Amino acid sequence: MSILVVGSVAFDDITSPSGSVKDILGGAATYFSLAASYFTQVRVVAVVGEDFGPQQEKVFQKRGVDTRGIERARGRSFHWGGTYSHNLNEAKTDFTHLNVFEHFHPRIPRQYDDTEFLFLANIQPTLQANVRRSMKRVRFTGCDTMNYWIQGTPKELAETLKLVDVLLINDAETKMLAGESNLPRAAHKVLAMGPQALVIKHGEYGATIFFREGAFGIGHHPFRAPALPIEEVKDPTGAGDSFAGGFMGYLAAQEEVSREVLKRALFYGGVMGSFAVERFGTERLQSLTREEIDARFQVFRELTHLE
Amino acid sequence: MSILVVGSVAFDDITSPSGSVKDILGGAATYFSLAASYFTQVRVVAVVGEDFGPQQEKVFQKRGVDTRGIERARGRSFHWGGTYSHNLNEAKTDFTHLNVFEHFHPRIPRQYDDTEFLFLANIQPTLQANVRRSMKRVRFTGCDTMNYWIQGTPKELAETLKLVDVLLINDAETKMLAGESNLPRAAHKVLAMGPQALVIKHGEYGATIFFREGAFGIGHHPFRAPALPIEEVKDPTGAGDSFAGGFMGYLAAQEEVSREVLKRALFYGGVMGSFAVERFGTERLQSLTREEIDARFQVFRELTHLE
Repeated sequence: MSILVVGSVAFDDITSPSGSVKDILGGAATYFSLAASYFTQVRVVAVVGEDFGPQQEKVFQKRGVDTRGIERARGRSFHWGGTYSHNLNEAKTDFTHLNVFEHFHPRIPRQYDDTEFLFLANIQPTLQANVRRSMKRVRFTGCDTMNYWIQGTPKELAETLKLVDVLLINDAETKMLAGESNLPRAAHKVLAMGPQALVIKHGEYGATIFFREGAFGIGHHPFRAPALPIEEVKDPTGAGDSFAGGFMGYLAAQEEVSREVLKRALFYGGVMGSFAVERFGTERLQSLTREEIDARFQVFRELTHLE
Repeated sequence: MSILVVGSVAFDDITSPSGSVKDILGGAATYFSLAASYFTQVRVVAVVGEDFGPQQEKVFQKRGVDTRGIERARGRSFHWGGTYSHNLNEAKTDFTHLNVFEHFHPRIPRQYDDTEFLFLANIQPTLQANVRRSMKRVRFTGCDTMNYWIQGTPKELAETLKLVDVLLINDAETKMLAGESNLPRAAHKVLAMGPQALVIKHGEYGATIFFREGAFGIGHHPFRAPALPIEEVKDPTGAGDSFAGGFMGYLAAQEEVSREVLKRALFYGGVMGSFAVERFGTERLQSLTREEIDARFQVFRELTHLE
């Protein structure tokens, strides 16, 4: 099943303890697309500027990603600069130039109308809702958001959350969205806002999925996938979007979305996130094989498996 | 196999979002003893003051803990006061009255000479080393420490680490001890200091065990046990010591200490830590059953288990 992602395609300047890079391809939709492309056919809706050329286009094409939904606008692409210090968990933003992304109004090409799996990367919540509403054949929607929208547009975000099946956010975002400092209690409050499931990303500690009572089968226990302790974290940028790409891409490739499938998807999310951080930008995600991915899936599985 | 713990037996004043308690029984050796008592016979070496009476003694006795090693000194017992705000991960210390603990010199009763499993709770490293050296029949030693000793007495701590089989500390302590911000790299540096294995406690995210190459069997992969997302955390005090009690207590009860046994011990550590935080002080640890413990072990196991 194809999956459609709506979000940013951008250029990044990144500095980490491992070095510095300029004008490399980035953006949530980019990381998501590349990660998901190892599992299923991916379609992208985004906007780029005149600085997006054949070199960037080729990164998507080599992974078979359908870029007909990438709109070309006058001006420059979204450009972000960030620095990671020794604590790689948080980036200091050096600059954010929205450029053409400032007036992004996602337009879904006709050829994408048959899409059944949708991922709304981190953009303004009303845009997310409009995309979801405009796509009649979608049957499973994943969604990301961030503190900026949680604090700035809570009503709009609440409307969007009613339309999504699974929300993927981190610990701090979950607590902020729920107004509750205890994580499991916060998770239940978020589920009451609409989603059938909530994936909370814990960075180097993995991720937990909480289910709505009765959603995707019987039971109410959460499930946790660990993350691999990684010795060489070169660049954490895009780890969360790569996680989402692995998670959603795996789901879209399955016959049905059951609890057991969602659990495996959580592992695949962690796997793709762990690859992403090994090199700067999308480098590692451009040249993986499905064999490498499945080998790491096994390592993740054994990491917590008792005989 | 009996296990001996050397550490503090204390009184605590604790405030958390769930309430406030005064003069309740606490201390690392107390939490450790109670948690370990569900797995094996426990012996305690500690010092208390005249305020330690039959009421406190009874808590140990009801769990069958051997208290002949608890020395009674003139004055008052160690007394700690701390406050947890909504972020339950860190306590603000309100006061620390060392009292009789200031001059604690562990004396091992003759009847404890046949001890084979030893846990050195968080006390001055040279005292830890002296205890270990004085006990000729010990064949497995666990050890805790903290930032105060890592920064204040690094040489003494280095000597102690040469004598221990497994060190149990948290993420921040591991990074500080190794002088390295990447956790797996820090873990390998700590292992090079002496321990055969290192258990890093991640609080609500579980714990990871790293092995020295060749120690306890073949392989070099770390292993991670998750923690249960807990809705009602009343009082995090003693979670780490209860973890150590479950971990070491389970080990001491097994025929041999293999990798597979260490992995299961890591789960039991998490289980005992998760019980400890459900009530103030040691309340929950006083009244468990082995059935409740094994039921939660299964929940932890299923938390990350793929079909």
